[in-house]
Parts: sequence; structure tokens; C-alpha cells
Amino acid sequence: METKEKIFMKAAEMFLEYGYDGTPMSKIAKELGISKAGLYHHYPDKESLLFAAIDYGYQKLSGPLLKETKKILDPEKQLVFFLRGYAEIMTIDPGSRLGIHEAGKLKPEHFNKIKKIWQTTFDIFRDAISEMQKSGKAKKINSTYAAFAAIGMCSWIFYWFDYSRQENAEELAETFVEIFLRGITQETDH
Amino acid sequence: METKEKIFMKAAEMFLEYGYDGTPMSKIAKELGISKAGLYHHYPDKESLLFAAIDYGYQKLSGPLLKETKKILDPEKQLVFFLRGYAEIMTIDPGSRLGIHEAGKLKPEHFNKIKKIWQTTFDIFRDAISEMQKSGKAKKINSTYAAFAAIGMCSWIFYWFDYSRQENAEELAETFVEIFLRGITQETDH
Repeated sequence: METKEKIFMKAAEMFLEYGYDGTPMSKIAKELGISKAGLYHHYPDKESLLFAAIDYGYQKLSGPLLKETKKILDPEKQLVFFLRGYAEIMTIDPGSRLGIHEAGKLKPEHFNKIKKIWQTTFDIFRDAISEMQKSGKAKKINSTYAAFAAIGMCSWIFYWFDYSRQENAEELAETFVEIFLRGITQETDH
Repeated sequence: METKEKIFMKAAEMFLEYGYDGTPMSKIAKELGISKAGLYHHYPDKESLLFAAIDYGYQKLSGPLLKETKKILDPEKQLVFFLRGYAEIMTIDPGSRLGIHEAGKLKPEHFNKIKKIWQTTFDIFRDAISEMQKSGKAKKINSTYAAFAAIGMCSWIFYWFDYSRQENAEELAETFVEIFLRGITQETDH
């Protein structure tokens, strides 16, 4: 692992445990076994370290998922692919929790970058649901609320998922897809 | 409003805005226009103030909802009643967000009280789903994951709901009931 990566990974762990405000740079340096000056050499301030930690997960996981999702043209397939991927990311990356809890501590230009990813996530869900409604596949429910239902199911994973038991991640993602897709689908007469 | 209530309401507001760690007692006293000694007269420490703020919403909203829910015997009716009520509480009480974000800062005996409410919430969802599965009403999905899907949809409301536009709370709750209930229901052949 690169030095910078090692640093923000440790920082992320500590921010999650003690909170961003409760974790001084000196404590991070000590935990890493480096000097405070050494730490500041890599990150000029604590905020840049927080941004690196939050941005990493997005770059490595959410970014590629968003890109792949956009290639899919059928809205139902797109929704299923994205929901499954989103749920799976949440079971892999406890660090994304940091983005939710501490993004408000970021500088405006950094915060805006994260907000853009959130907005894209919402747009994908809402647009896929709207498209499915237009073709009669989805029920006429409020697509904004439905999109937030999907996001909520997935994002909440942080709060309860046992990260030491990765074996259930796939079943979890399938359960969510099953509930949500069935939940918005228009009932047809047989 | 009682003095104590006025105090913890203001504290809750400030904890939500600046974080628990970022809100010293002196700042709360100043904001209320009272002396620090006056504040300590009502609350011996900041933790007791945090607990009062978190506990208030549970006592006033979640507690009665849990009690009413337990009176319902039919698991489907119970699930619908509880899910609707839970979603509605989340649109009324931004203070509950405090419980999620800052409960970890509570003393063990206070934290355990809050955890018990969370556990009861989970049990109601999971048991209702399990009962519906036994009678063939619900699909054979993982009832733990399904329960967390419902909790996630509702709890996430904090993160996006526009509290100044209460008029949509009912539609939101109905949309969630519609998605979730349909999502777990066993499909039947017509």
C-alpha cells in the first residue's frame, strides 16, 4: 500500500471511531508511528485527509458502478444492476459511512464533489423508475420517494451489517432487489 | 413549554448543527440567554442533556407507536400500521436523527435504553414478516434483511426530507407501505 493510502485508511478508521472532531492530527500521527511533521508533509490539513478518505471509496467503488450503470439502456435492468451494486458496495466499504457522517465538515469545493455523486445516485434511481412508469412497468407512485426508499435501504446497511460476515452480502443484495423491484412493479391481470 | 424542555430542545438543535462534541455547555447557555450555572442547575452534565433530547422523541412518539402496534394481532395489519407510523415519525421529528448520530456518546445505561427501543423496532418488523411467511402471505426471503430494508427506508428520511414541507408526509408513508408490503408479498396465481 502507498504511504498516502496507508495514512488516509488509518485516518478513516479513527474518524469513524472517535468522530472527525474528536481525532486530532497528532493522534493520527501517533497511531501511524510517524511524526506530526511527517503527516503534514502528506496532508496539509485534517480536511484534506478527510476528503482523501471519503473520495477514495467513491473513486474505487461508486465511480465505476455509476459508469457501468449508465451503459445499460433498459430501465429495469439498469435499476436492478445499480441497486444490487449499491447494496454490495455498502457491505464492502464501511468507509463510505464516513462520507455520510462527516461530509458536512468538508470544504465547499470538496463537499460539492461528494454531493454531485449523491445527486447522480438519486437521478439514476428516479429516472429508471420514471421510465418504467412511462412504459407501464412500474406503478404510479411518487418516483422521488421511491428513489429515496431504495437509497435508504442501501445506505442504512452501514448501521447494522456485520462486516466480519461478508458471506451474506450477495443474499442481502438479492433480497433488496427482490423487495424493491417487486414493490414498484405494476400488477398485471393474468 | 417547561424550562427543562426548552433547554434540551435548544441543545438538540445545536447538537444537530454543530455535533455533540462541537457544542460546549457554555455555548448552549449563551444561546438560551441563561448563565452556565443556571444550565448546570437543570442538567448536571452535557450527557444528561443529550439523553433528555434523544429520549424525549422516543417517549413522545416511538413509545406510543410501539405500544399501539403491539395491540394489533394480524401480522400484515401490524406491519402496515408500524411502517406507516415509523415513516411519519421520521417526517415530524428531526431530533430522532440525534439518536442515530450521537447515541454512541451516551453513558452505557442511557445507551442501553435507546438500544432496547431499536431492538424492539427490529423485532416487530422481523416477527411480522416471519408470521406472514408462515401463513404463506410473504415470500421466503431473509426476514432479517427485509426488516432492515424497512428500517433503512424510514430512518433515511432524516437525510433528505424537507421538514418545511410537511404536506407530503402522508404520501411518503403510503408510498413506503406500498413498496414494502408489495415487495414482500407472495405472488399468487390468478
